[in-house]
Amino acid sequence: MDAQPPEREPRLSRAAAHRLSLYLRCVSTWPATGGKVSSSRIAAAVGVSDAQVRRDLAALGHLGQRGIGYEAEGLATAIRSALGINRTWRAVLVGVGNLARALLRYQGFRAQGFEVVGLFDSDISKVGQTVEGLIVESATHLGERSAELGAELGILTLPGEVAQSAADVLATARIRGILNFAPVVLRLPSRVRLVTVDLAIQLEQLAFLVQHGDTDVAGRPADDD
Amino acid sequence: MDAQPPEREPRLSRAAAHRLSLYLRCVSTWPATGGKVSSSRIAAAVGVSDAQVRRDLAALGHLGQRGIGYEAEGLATAIRSALGINRTWRAVLVGVGNLARALLRYQGFRAQGFEVVGLFDSDISKVGQTVEGLIVESATHLGERSAELGAELGILTLPGEVAQSAADVLATARIRGILNFAPVVLRLPSRVRLVTVDLAIQLEQLAFLVQHGDTDVAGRPADDD
Repeated sequence: MDAQPPEREPRLSRAAAHRLSLYLRCVSTWPATGGKVSSSRIAAAVGVSDAQVRRDLAALGHLGQRGIGYEAEGLATAIRSALGINRTWRAVLVGVGNLARALLRYQGFRAQGFEVVGLFDSDISKVGQTVEGLIVESATHLGERSAELGAELGILTLPGEVAQSAADVLATARIRGILNFAPVVLRLPSRVRLVTVDLAIQLEQLAFLVQHGDTDVAGRPADDD
Repeated sequence: MDAQPPEREPRLSRAAAHRLSLYLRCVSTWPATGGKVSSSRIAAAVGVSDAQVRRDLAALGHLGQRGIGYEAEGLATAIRSALGINRTWRAVLVGVGNLARALLRYQGFRAQGFEVVGLFDSDISKVGQTVEGLIVESATHLGERSAELGAELGILTLPGEVAQSAADVLATARIRGILNFAPVVLRLPSRVRLVTVDLAIQLEQLAFLVQHGDTDVAGRPADDD
């Protein structure tokens, strides 16, 4: 683990950040009754304890009122700020297959402030095609174009055998984080953050849970404290 | 948390199970030199400590030999057994869009013992179509057909607003676990296990990591001990 720049926000664990994402999902999709949501309602929906929800939200400096709850809009804003999604993140997507198309059509990305600004593929027959309003560019220009487009994130939806070389190119451009769907363990410089969504591993985890009887709401440990 | 049947395997944490999945990915994709892999090579690839790898593998009763390492094939077998993937899992898939097609073409699923045995959609124009060798059936028959097909797992690749009702149908059939890609928090009876892959939340986690400078190899906490 290398030295990190000073933080402006109080330190959150990854598990806490994940819970905040789930709370945000609830708060922003529920019709708020009079603009208020209760910690117990969030707790029941996410599958953690009421105390956990209150602790997590108190850590954001957000205190609900007993019997009244939290003001929904303010709470959503505070969570977005804590997670770093109170801004737009520009992303390039590499590998324009079915998964890429599914992601591009997925409304949730733009709603949460993620904007795909470039599509790249090494298949020459795909280059020049328009997909969801963007023209597919040649993967040969991935590095220079990512920088030109001001992309900070890269999304890899390509086969495992070519994922590392695409990741290397993105790492030498100005990319700060990679969301990797290729079923490989990528090696990256420590300044580039990585989240891997390995779909076979998700299924393996489900098989493990079914076999062993553990329970989980969102594919992650229920809490960290 | 309800009472669970007695376990045959030693108890693994979710984080340990996830690390084992990553080790398995390495062991089964590397060309094994003389059939041996070292804990340090696995550790470097996955991004955990050598000691962690040795501890995790020792918990499976698998002890490498200093300077020689682990016998690759035996190690893969032991990990598969611990995770519960030393068998075939039959799954039904609900919602036949781009994401479903991407999953069906994804070679990793079948290689790890997951077999999609039925496709369902509520869109009448898709019913009867052949997709990756399977005929799309009407979602109206989801419950009875899942039971007939002997499916134990369900994969939900449908819009958020209809995911809960499909999950309810699967829960009343013999489904034991659900892999949910819909961006909603599902409510299920505790006997049905749930892994949610919420793609917007994965991107939120990446933004959080980029913003806050934490590092992670595979979208989960690095260790739990």
